[in-house]
Amino acid sequence: MNDTLVAGFLFALDLAGTFVFALSGALAGVRHKLDLFGVLGVAFVAATAGGIMRDLLIGAVPPPAVADWRYLVTALAAGLLTFYFSRGVDRARHSVLIFDAAGLALFAVAGALKAMAAGLHPVSACLLGMLTGIGGGMARDLLVGEVPIVLHSELYAVAALAGAAVTVIGLELHLPSLIAAPIGALLCFGLRMAAIRRGWRLPTAPGT
Amino acid sequence: MNDTLVAGFLFALDLAGTFVFALSGALAGVRHKLDLFGVLGVAFVAATAGGIMRDLLIGAVPPPAVADWRYLVTALAAGLLTFYFSRGVDRARHSVLIFDAAGLALFAVAGALKAMAAGLHPVSACLLGMLTGIGGGMARDLLVGEVPIVLHSELYAVAALAGAAVTVIGLELHLPSLIAAPIGALLCFGLRMAAIRRGWRLPTAPGT
Amino acid sequence: MNDTLVAGFLFALDLAGTFVFALSGALAGVRHKLDLFGVLGVAFVAATAGGIMRDLLIGAVPPPAVADWRYLVTALAAGLLTFYFSRGVDRARHSVLIFDAAGLALFAVAGALKAMAAGLHPVSACLLGMLTGIGGGMARDLLVGEVPIVLHSELYAVAALAGAAVTVIGLELHLPSLIAAPIGALLCFGLRMAAIRRGWRLPTAPGT
Repeated sequence: MNDTLVAGFLFALDLAGTFVFALSGALAGVRHKLDLFGVLGVAFVAATAGGIMRDLLIGAVPPPAVADWRYLVTALAAGLLTFYFSRGVDRARHSVLIFDAAGLALFAVAGALKAMAAGLHPVSACLLGMLTGIGGGMARDLLVGEVPIVLHSELYAVAALAGAAVTVIGLELHLPSLIAAPIGALLCFGLRMAAIRRGWRLPTAPGT
Repeated sequence: MNDTLVAGFLFALDLAGTFVFALSGALAGVRHKLDLFGVLGVAFVAATAGGIMRDLLIGAVPPPAVADWRYLVTALAAGLLTFYFSRGVDRARHSVLIFDAAGLALFAVAGALKAMAAGLHPVSACLLGMLTGIGGGMARDLLVGEVPIVLHSELYAVAALAGAAVTVIGLELHLPSLIAAPIGALLCFGLRMAAIRRGWRLPTAPGT
Repeated sequence: MNDTLVAGFLFALDLAGTFVFALSGALAGVRHKLDLFGVLGVAFVAATAGGIMRDLLIGAVPPPAVADWRYLVTALAAGLLTFYFSRGVDRARHSVLIFDAAGLALFAVAGALKAMAAGLHPVSACLLGMLTGIGGGMARDLLVGEVPIVLHSELYAVAALAGAAVTVIGLELHLPSLIAAPIGALLCFGLRMAAIRRGWRLPTAPGT
């Protein structure tokens, strides 16, 4: 297969994930009555913080989300769209959830691949893959003064972890990443969609 | 011109910015009834977090704000002053705002210069210049449990961005930094002062 | 003395500190009604964030807390124990406080040693030692939506700083670290225990 085409395809997927995560950040900003800068800022942070944390932890600096202006432009486009048409984006929030699940799958798997490529232990790669998927949403929630939703509601991080883990296991079994990654991404996406549809949640501590 | 003199002048300006940002952090700490350590801690974080984030993102570790004890001593001096004379500092808060605008201008421009010197893309340098200016205030607000004021009130980040952008454009046009930087800093300072005097704010999303 | 034995002993102490800090994180998670992932996540963050911040600041990436799966497993064990037996852990919270003081002493001293070994200025090493000790608890509190307790209550950071400072001074006086470190750790532990027993607190600003 043409390597440039594959790389281009992966980059397009990455920008698509950036776009939907930025939508979720911008919506949170609009709901908390932030001003234009606040909405755009939270959009950018929600879209990039997970990848930036991973890059800082593995020493890949400057992180592409900062060094490559196309991530900024993509996040700003999603932020401006949400700012001026927030009712429309809010009404479409069910579709946004689907795209968000796709973004989660993509980021978790891409994060795990990047951590493996940086030579980290497979367990660390699973952790960093999950962090890549959930870090942006956590930073978004903290910026608007809320406890990160991933810590108390919804099966979200587990889906990211499962996708990252399957990808890492595939690589450890010497599957090519072009096979392991899509399997991990599909598992993450499927788990997250099932969790949304069926209201799956993790338990809280017994007696609370 | 004498290079050592220029470097010394810039370092003195940097410490001056550190001092005023630390004042704002310490005031926030006193208002939230933090104890002595809390006031000094928030003072140090408010003064240094923007530069530290920039340094981590471009791989300039250890950041000078951590490695050079003069930043710590400057921030502690501002923190102690505020702790013991908080009413006086609070009464002087209009003057503090003026110094804060100067600190913002200085940090935004210095951050942009440092990012350009590290070889980042001009767009990234604008982003990192802005982050250098606003990061400390954001960390200060998060530590005392508030949504960062820069996200919802006042024209603050835009002034930092404008100052950083003009500096970067100047460098791209091959102006020497000794010319580009003061122009950017003056623009940032002027915008911020005008925003304070005239109550300029950014819009919130239509319909909120 | 057998170097491997010493290294093994220090690593065991490090994991013990990780365990007790993870207990405090998991308890905070249970109290805030986080779900299973949230409790484990906050446990891991409380146990590792201080060391991770230090490692990022001195450029020691990937941080051992991320790269070595034994930290993760230790934190998860403490998190699961707390999740399923939170009443028991809560009832034992006085004992947890003692272990927490030991963890604080260990982390502060180990952080200072690591910063000195990385060539930082002695003042910076004190700062980073203190950060290693208190960073995890600060991140824990921020994640559950609270102002970090270390900023407004209890003599906690000062004990960490004292332990780090004594260790650093010992090294500067050319004492071997096997002598300087235990003295620093004992001072930190003793100060913290005395603060707990006698309710020592730092002052808040006069007039607040």
